[in-house]
This record gives sequence, structure tokens and C-alpha cells, in this order.
Amino acid sequence: MFENTIAAISTSLQDGAISIIRLSGDKAIEITQKIFDRNIMNAKSHTIHYGFIIDIDKNPVDEVLISIFRAPKTYTREDIVEINCHGGTFITRKILSMVLSAGADLAKPGEFTQRAFYHGRIDLSQAEAVQDMIEASNNTAASMAIHGIKGSVKKLLQPLIDDLMDIIAQIEVNIDYPEYEDVEQLTTNDLLPKTNDWLDKIDHILARVQTGQMLKKGIDTIIIGKPNVGKSSLLNALLEEDKAIVTDIAGTTRDLVEGQIHIGSVQLNLIDTAGIRESSDKIEQIGIEKSQEKLKDAKLVLLVFDGSKELDEEDKQLLELTKDKMRLIIYNKLDKTSPDKDGIWISAANKDIQPLIDALENLYHEDLLKEDPLLSNERQIGLLNQAKEDMLRAKEAMDRMVEPDLIEIDIQAAHDHLKEILGEVHREDLLDTLFSKFCLGK
Amino acid sequence: MFENTIAAISTSLQDGAISIIRLSGDKAIEITQKIFDRNIMNAKSHTIHYGFIIDIDKNPVDEVLISIFRAPKTYTREDIVEINCHGGTFITRKILSMVLSAGADLAKPGEFTQRAFYHGRIDLSQAEAVQDMIEASNNTAASMAIHGIKGSVKKLLQPLIDDLMDIIAQIEVNIDYPEYEDVEQLTTNDLLPKTNDWLDKIDHILARVQTGQMLKKGIDTIIIGKPNVGKSSLLNALLEEDKAIVTDIAGTTRDLVEGQIHIGSVQLNLIDTAGIRESSDKIEQIGIEKSQEKLKDAKLVLLVFDGSKELDEEDKQLLELTKDKMRLIIYNKLDKTSPDKDGIWISAANKDIQPLIDALENLYHEDLLKEDPLLSNERQIGLLNQAKEDMLRAKEAMDRMVEPDLIEIDIQAAHDHLKEILGEVHREDLLDTLFSKFCLGK
Repeated sequence: MFENTIAAISTSLQDGAISIIRLSGDKAIEITQKIFDRNIMNAKSHTIHYGFIIDIDKNPVDEVLISIFRAPKTYTREDIVEINCHGGTFITRKILSMVLSAGADLAKPGEFTQRAFYHGRIDLSQAEAVQDMIEASNNTAASMAIHGIKGSVKKLLQPLIDDLMDIIAQIEVNIDYPEYEDVEQLTTNDLLPKTNDWLDKIDHILARVQTGQMLKKGIDTIIIGKPNVGKSSLLNALLEEDKAIVTDIAGTTRDLVEGQIHIGSVQLNLIDTAGIRESSDKIEQIGIEKSQEKLKDAKLVLLVFDGSKELDEEDKQLLELTKDKMRLIIYNKLDKTSPDKDGIWISAANKDIQPLIDALENLYHEDLLKEDPLLSNERQIGLLNQAKEDMLRAKEAMDRMVEPDLIEIDIQAAHDHLKEILGEVHREDLLDTLFSKFCLGK
Repeated sequence: MFENTIAAISTSLQDGAISIIRLSGDKAIEITQKIFDRNIMNAKSHTIHYGFIIDIDKNPVDEVLISIFRAPKTYTREDIVEINCHGGTFITRKILSMVLSAGADLAKPGEFTQRAFYHGRIDLSQAEAVQDMIEASNNTAASMAIHGIKGSVKKLLQPLIDDLMDIIAQIEVNIDYPEYEDVEQLTTNDLLPKTNDWLDKIDHILARVQTGQMLKKGIDTIIIGKPNVGKSSLLNALLEEDKAIVTDIAGTTRDLVEGQIHIGSVQLNLIDTAGIRESSDKIEQIGIEKSQEKLKDAKLVLLVFDGSKELDEEDKQLLELTKDKMRLIIYNKLDKTSPDKDGIWISAANKDIQPLIDALENLYHEDLLKEDPLLSNERQIGLLNQAKEDMLRAKEAMDRMVEPDLIEIDIQAAHDHLKEILGEVHREDLLDTLFSKFCLGK
């Protein structure tokens, strides 16, 4: 399908121990042979060959391992060669430039994956899951991505697509052969139950999609409470806890921003609550408005009270303010008092926050494991919503007793929008845009 | 020799298309098997296996390629496994942590290469060349590194070591068997010619080492001249030229600092000459001192004159100031005049600087290709100098007609210092320090 052989650096371009330069195409092995000192022309697939990259004067350039993958059992379904060289940026670029001089074209971002898609090895949702995996910043996102790579989206959508095909087929038969006596004359009454059934299914998926998106990006979490109830100590204790978990992998750099923690598979994005803290002493006035704004976007509220004191008017206002949100009510300062009511009792000062950790784990654990798989890709969700709108239009037309053949246009649109998620229907320019957001070398 | 199996991320830890996690040791394959869904226990060496990393509940974690290398034909001479996973930092770290949980120890920086050294696959100079290759920022440095990897340092030093062994053996025979009639009684007169010969050889190497170091790090180059002779235009034209060369590799990011350019295999580090420019109009006074300081460290001077005017007093002072330096005399503004004397005539404004590029290429080309290989590693050069000093002491003792057996101590020290370059004599703690400066995963 593609005439040229492409090449790119597939590891990130920073000094490291090893870099990979990847080629894909009919001439991948032939091009590599031109700059490699051992014969690999007859090398078997999935084998590795030690040797030296050499320049045109046969001078050694680098000591490398060459991996050979022969079509069709490869990432792109084309011949693939991977050159593992020393991981310096200079030597890596130099070998890439030699590969390009030897006849390869520089790959565009995502072009390897794009070829895998065009060659039918993966559908578009699987291609997107590859990039999702690279961008995954927590267990949930990584887990959704690997399910996506394995084809979970198609498994989820295919029944919906098939249902629409059934409806369309029914209509088509009526349009094509209205004179056939054995084909029942179709009325909107026949279509409506199927349509409602279909809308139920997609609503169910869309509801779970929200959870998926939230889990993928992390849950925006706000810690609120009056001054001096121990919000900062709690924040520190939570960050401490996470630090301990993360540094189990000693020696790896940690690039998490302060305020992002991981509880089990769930990532909490701790939002700066300075605004609420500052305004909490004049909360009756402008404070409420300001807080509500901060609260509005948060998906989880950690409401902190001083457990050693009775709840006062301000505390009760905070209870009222957060009553419609997903929240955990926390009594702090267990070191100074004993629990006298139900709730999550902690001592942030003593880093004794296990009851809160447990509560957080319980909160999301169930949600996560309830059903597989989840959808979280923006493009896919957009198309899912479009398909739903198409069918709502179709349903409205049915309610108005419009003739089935006029309704077919909307049903067909819904069908195409779902197929577009998998890339079975697609526009070239949109595809190019989509893949251009991928990593170089992927 | 080593009981544990080590593991580390061998690619740089930034989001990329592919990451590599590398294991080395007796249990490398066994440990990987615990988290991989295909059977690799009997896999042949140098083969690649497609499959999924799985957690303890058999849930998929990532889609990977596993490369198997069985001892002894491996980088470390131990069993090695490389896991090529998706190149996101989260998923890469997660798989590393799974490998560590499955029984591997986190590798220290350079520990793979250290094992290769301890197992005798490479000598210490070869190990250092590996890191030199990763850090190489130009062709010369990369070329020196690959020769180093191939064992050029040992090839260079072995004759010197052998010569010292010969001298030592001669002395030893005399000490051990002074009564044997067929062993000539050794006098310092016999040793002196050999010692002088040896010193000539090491001086020759040390002279070329300077060139090696200079070429590896780039040549500190200063552009000087009066105001308005076109220094800035020349700088821009040079940088432009280099940019054109570098961007032959389209799509790769360029992280060269402004002022570093490559002429053929040589890297020029263009030094900021603001100091000289500012002071050039009062050069008779404090200017000269200031300029000389800047000049002192520069290895190359590009002295620019306005070719459309006669040389004035200031120009002549600059000629005098730079007379002991390696320099190129450049007449600019060829667009406004015709050449009326010998020299390098250019028009920086018109980007017509090819004569200068040619001159620069000629200047270093010969030097570079004259002889292979060059030494450039600081530690190695330090030891080389120590060996030379040892032998100078030995020679001085010989001149004073000291008995050969008393001289032996210095010759032995020279011998050991050369062996230390190759790591054949070494101190554990120094080795640990040396390898700790390596990349993680190498």
C-alpha cells in the first residue's frame, strides 16, 4: 500500500543508555544492510543481530543490535528493522541521518501506527489507545489504554452498530420491495421499540464514559474547612503517603506535581483551596459565591472539621454548601479527642490518615471494577454523542409518524458516526490530523 | 560472579514511542516469565517475543516485545532480557516496579557496563568509551568513542606496557640470578636507551592527546575585529550555514546552543567576544589586557578586517595581539571591493563565506586523519601523565647511576599506571565512583 520505507527515532531524544531507530517498509532490511557490517538480508523474523554501523568508507560509527521483523507479523504489517544504538542524542541522530541517506524517508509523527491502521492490523480506536498508553499518568488510564489496544472499543460498539444495521436493513427491504407480499409493511411503530432500546444502551455507555474520563484524568478534589481545622496538615500527610508509594521505585525521577496523589488505581488532583480558606471567615457574605465557584468543578470534596470541638454555624454552612457533591466528611485532631459521632476520624498532625485512605479506596474501587471496558477518548466520545443525537432526531421523526425511508438518513448517520470511531468510515484529512498528535517514532 | 539479577530503564525517562527495561543476571528470564503471558523459558538467544505484560491477576498491563539474550554472548556476559514497552513514563516505571517486585534489584548507574568489565568482556577504557559515546556531541568525539569501544586504547598502550615489562624482566633476572655467568651484568647504560625510546613514544601519544581532547570538546574559537567590520554578520552567516547542515535531519529537535557550529568533523565553540568588541576602541589602554585574557583560552582566532579599507593602527594591533595564536585572517565586505591582498575574502552580509569554510576544513582535516586512534578521556590522560613522570624519575635515577634494582620501583609504578588505564590494576572504590557517573540502564 505504501511505496516508501519510513524511519524515525522511537525513543525520546535525550541522552540515555539506549536509543532505537525504527524503519518500516519494503526496503527496511535492504536500507539497513547498506550501513551494517554483518549480512542480515536472509535473517529470520524476530531475530537480533550484533554488529557495527559503518559509513561509506567502512569506518565504524556505532556498536549496535539490529532487530529484524518480517511482514506480516509486525507492528505495521510491513518489514520492520529496529536499530538499538548507544543512547546519546548526537549518535542517535547521526545514525538516523545515515538511514535517511541510505533511502528511507523521515516518518511523520504516528506514521508507523497509521500504517498499522491502514493495513488493517488495528482499528482507529486501537491506534488511539496506543497514544493513550504513552500519555497515561495513572493505573486507570494505563488499564483503559491496554484494553483499548486489545480492541475493547470495537467489542463495546459492534452490537450498537449491528442493531442500527438491522434497522436500516428492515427499512431498505421495505423501500426496495414494497410490492412483495411477504415483506411486512414497516411502520414507525415497529422501529420505535428498537430505537428506544438502542438509546438505552448508548445512554448506559455514555454514563460510564464520564467515569472513564474522570478516572483517566484524575479526580479534581478540593479540601475545605474552616481555618485551623488542619487542612494543610492533611494535604501534607496525603502527599507524604503518596511519596512513600511512588518512591518504592527508587532511583527513578519523580515528576508529579505537588497536589497529585494516587489512591489505589485512582489519581486525585488536589486543587488549591486558598480561595476558600481566605474567605471562610466571612463566608456569609461574598465567601459563599467564591467557594461555590471553586466547588462547582471539583468532583470530590474532602470536608474537614475539628473533631475536638462541636460543629458551629460555619461548619454547618459548609455542610449545606457541599450537600450535592460527592464528599467525605473528616473529623481531624483525633490526637486531642475521641470519636463521638460517625465519620472518618484522623489525626493529620500524627500522619494517622489511614481511615481516610481506606474511605477513598472504597469510594472508587467499586465503580472501577463494576464493568469493563470504559471509553475515555475525546474524539470517540464526541462521535458517540453525535450518534446519540442522530438517533434522537430519528426517534422524534418516528414520534411524528414520518415515513421510515425519511428516517433512514438519521439512522444511517448514527451508524456512520459509530463506524467513524473505529475508523471504518473516515476522512483522510481528519486522520492525518489525528495521527499528527502522536509521538514521533510510534 | 554476581548473585543478583539487576534491572533498570535503559531509555531516557521522557515520554517517547518506545521504552526499554533491561534485566541482567541468572534469573533475568525467570523473572520476566513471571510477568509475561507467553512461555519464554526455552526461548533461543537473540530472539524476540511478542506478548503482554500481565499482573498477578493475569490482567494485561502492556503490549510488549521481549528480547532474549543468553550468556555468554551478551553485553554483560550474563543472561539479558530487554522489555520494549510503550514509551510513556508511567507505564515504563510501572513495568520496572513489577520487574523489581518479581525479584530483580534496581541497577546502579553503569552497573551493566561494570558487569561487562568484571566479566572480562571489555577493559576499563572500553567501558569509558561507552559513556563517551553517549555524551559525544560531534563526529570526532563519536569517532573516538567507537574506536575506544573497539579497544583502540589497549592497542595503543600494550606496546608501551610490553616495553616496560621487558625492562622489568631484565632487571629481575639480574637481581634473581646475579651469579649466573650467562646473564650479563646490567648497568644503567643498558636501560637508558630503552627508557628514552619509551619516553619518546609516550610524548608522541601525549602530544596527540591534546588534539584529541580539543577535537572531542570542540575548538574554542573567538571572532575578533574592530567595530563594524562585520563580526556579527559573520557569526550569523556561520550559524546559518550550520543550521542548514543540521536540519538535513528534518523533524529532529536541535538543542545546540547558539555559537556552536560544525565544520566537517570539527566542532567550533564560538565564544562571546562582547568583551573585546566593547574595549576595542580604547585598545591601547586597558583594552589589550582584557582582550588577551579572552584570547588566552581560545584555541582559534578568526580575525576580521574590513577588506574595503586599508588596515589602520588598531587592525595592526590586533594582528600583533594574535600573532602567537592559531588564527585565520579574514577580509570581509567582498561585496563592496575586490581582493587586493592574500587572505580569506568573504562577504558575510551576502552569506558568501565559503572560502572561510574551506579554510577551516583544511585547517583541521589533516590533523584529524593523520593518525588513529586518539585518547581523550581525562582519567586515562591523567594516568598516562603519571606513567610518564614515573619514568622521568627512573631516568633521573639512571642518570645518577643508581643501581637498576632501586630504579625498578619507578618502572613498576609506570607499568601499573598504564595497566590502571585498562583496569587490569584497579581499586574497587575508584571503580565504583567511575561507573556511578554512567547513565542509568547502561
